[in-house]
Amino acid sequence: MKILVLNSGSSSLKFQLFSKKDLAVLAAGLIEQIGDENSGASLSYTDPSGSNLELKQSGCVSDHREAIQLMTEMLQKSGTLTDTGELAGIGHRVVHGGETFHLPIRIDATVIAAIDELIPLAPLHNPANLLGIRVSMEHAAHIPQVAVFDTAFHQSIPEHAYLYALPHRLYKEQKVRRYGFHGTSHAYVAGQAAKQLGKPLTELNIITLHLGNGASAAAISRGSCIDTSMGMTPLEGLVMGTRCGDLDPAILFYLGRETGMSMDDLDTLLNKESGLKGICDESDMRSISEAAEKGEKRAQLALAIFCYRLKKYIGAYTAALGGVDCIVFTGGIGENSAITRKLSCEGLEQMGICLDVSRNSIRQEEVLEIQTAESPVSILVVPTDEEYEIARQTLQIIEQSDSDEQG
Amino acid sequence: MKILVLNSGSSSLKFQLFSKKDLAVLAAGLIEQIGDENSGASLSYTDPSGSNLELKQSGCVSDHREAIQLMTEMLQKSGTLTDTGELAGIGHRVVHGGETFHLPIRIDATVIAAIDELIPLAPLHNPANLLGIRVSMEHAAHIPQVAVFDTAFHQSIPEHAYLYALPHRLYKEQKVRRYGFHGTSHAYVAGQAAKQLGKPLTELNIITLHLGNGASAAAISRGSCIDTSMGMTPLEGLVMGTRCGDLDPAILFYLGRETGMSMDDLDTLLNKESGLKGICDESDMRSISEAAEKGEKRAQLALAIFCYRLKKYIGAYTAALGGVDCIVFTGGIGENSAITRKLSCEGLEQMGICLDVSRNSIRQEEVLEIQTAESPVSILVVPTDEEYEIARQTLQIIEQSDSDEQG
Repeated sequence: MKILVLNSGSSSLKFQLFSKKDLAVLAAGLIEQIGDENSGASLSYTDPSGSNLELKQSGCVSDHREAIQLMTEMLQKSGTLTDTGELAGIGHRVVHGGETFHLPIRIDATVIAAIDELIPLAPLHNPANLLGIRVSMEHAAHIPQVAVFDTAFHQSIPEHAYLYALPHRLYKEQKVRRYGFHGTSHAYVAGQAAKQLGKPLTELNIITLHLGNGASAAAISRGSCIDTSMGMTPLEGLVMGTRCGDLDPAILFYLGRETGMSMDDLDTLLNKESGLKGICDESDMRSISEAAEKGEKRAQLALAIFCYRLKKYIGAYTAALGGVDCIVFTGGIGENSAITRKLSCEGLEQMGICLDVSRNSIRQEEVLEIQTAESPVSILVVPTDEEYEIARQTLQIIEQSDSDEQG
Repeated sequence: MKILVLNSGSSSLKFQLFSKKDLAVLAAGLIEQIGDENSGASLSYTDPSGSNLELKQSGCVSDHREAIQLMTEMLQKSGTLTDTGELAGIGHRVVHGGETFHLPIRIDATVIAAIDELIPLAPLHNPANLLGIRVSMEHAAHIPQVAVFDTAFHQSIPEHAYLYALPHRLYKEQKVRRYGFHGTSHAYVAGQAAKQLGKPLTELNIITLHLGNGASAAAISRGSCIDTSMGMTPLEGLVMGTRCGDLDPAILFYLGRETGMSMDDLDTLLNKESGLKGICDESDMRSISEAAEKGEKRAQLALAIFCYRLKKYIGAYTAALGGVDCIVFTGGIGENSAITRKLSCEGLEQMGICLDVSRNSIRQEEVLEIQTAESPVSILVVPTDEEYEIARQTLQIIEQSDSDEQG
């Protein structure tokens, strides 16, 4: 039996097929530019048998229904999934579970309605996730499907950390609070870190840094998340590829007053034109690091701001946790940018965080420890795997409901 | 000879008179509700000779010119200042010095023009400060006058800490950056802390926490400020009486979309209806602490949020400084709220910050050390005195220009 994981964006469908037995990856693919009538969809597909497919389709993939059809054909052709009946379950990534979902859940009409109700909190993501769920439910009605939420892991954050200092009615009536995102990744890498250190999660204080095009930090106290840097939306917190992260909110009033920018203009500015891109016209950390090394001042500045903010979160969460045992770097930047890890840990020796510069420069696909031998705090590079974690949680929910039915 | 310090708000004038010799306070007063034709001005005045005056004038004080006239009369009547000729100088508090002013400066037409040019950055404060300066320059044209800026102390903050992750042109063209405020207070209490510890400022890393109705933290590395929590405006950072402090900026877009609030509505919401008041309908920390002790849930929540945010800044700045020697509490809340100090230091023992609960409950007017005997980090309560610091800086500038003229 197999587990299929679907991550459905507004114009994309990412999928990964796992064997149920050992959660080994059987195939993975990505269909992009769904609905693009001009350039057509772009498609990549790979499976361990060696089928590797990357092509710019001339034809258009008009909607998610066609995309799922296409995925099914590819899986069939390569022989990795000849019939949907081989599926033990389908796991769906859902961005926003609000306060409704603390855990992954078997999808039914009630769950769909609840995700739909949360659309105002994630107007770009939840509709796209729902689209994938609905099409997949039609396509494979008889297969158990599970929703795994990006926000769920952060639902353990206590009130004093998730509430903003705003009128209380905005929380009660408008659901304004910190939710946090990347929860699946934070949970996964924290678990891997505990394995690496040979200790149960419940005996560790961990700071996880998920640094990709989006970036967030989480403070995890004995397995429970107690704070995270993304807020009500994924805009708050660390500096990101094109998002500003933490910002004096009154800057919006100033810019409105001085430049006449509208709320929509400001939304675009902060979400799409800021972050690393805003500072140095480049959002990719690899290019930025290279330019910085060549002496380009703006690239150096982008790198310095990114790492300084990261360092402040490490300090803030060390205080919030009352001491930290382990810091975990993950995500594209966290896993691959040695300079980012170096600069963000620089000067933290007095806090017991001592990075070994030469270990830090090792490149490997597995978990890597990069602290010095004497460092009281462990520093780990842990490759994240959100799809694996979604598959694992999906399997767990299915087996639970199976045993519930039998019980 | 004497030094007069003026702090001119939009409808208030605060003044304090010092002896030049030892900067002892000779008199102090406050005129409020200037221009209020209905209830008239409120007035308080005190001098060490025993004159104590607090009265609700029936008459209206129509403008700052009249207010300065009134102040002059009070000082004359009490015999503390019979003639403006006795003044060696007048020091003016100015909120925003932008990037123009790193230091206090002798006021002339150029300085006035520069402060005027900075009005867009502090549309409420700089015009009021300028009003006081202009009236005072007319009233005492022959007396040297000095501007002391709230932002000046923070001008040493490095680029990677003062720049936001926004398009670089917003800094270049619109002056969007972190400026910070309360600089005079942060500088003063850091100096007092160094005295208390018997070490030069240049050998200490200090975190100063100015907690009043407005609240800000500063990280001071060997005498130089390297970061502060207030940003481009005084809205960012810690939770304050009615200001929200740090906030996911996208909450503004959400509220605009969901409730139809305008920029002006949101400005009022975040600056006047948020913070402690927003959480528990009360902005005064004394009342909040009492209510919290009686078990009122919202008051407990306000206190918890306030202190948790404070704790995160202590952690963040410890990381930014690469270790801290001393933490200073000041301002109305910092000096008087033992529970705030206790909660914000709780759990920081692993970071070397160990508060002595019984010393923390001592009330005294002088500098107080509240760390345990074994604490690697000193924790100090230091009464702030912005007027004294303005007088001191004013005197310094006057003596400098005197010696420049003689030299």
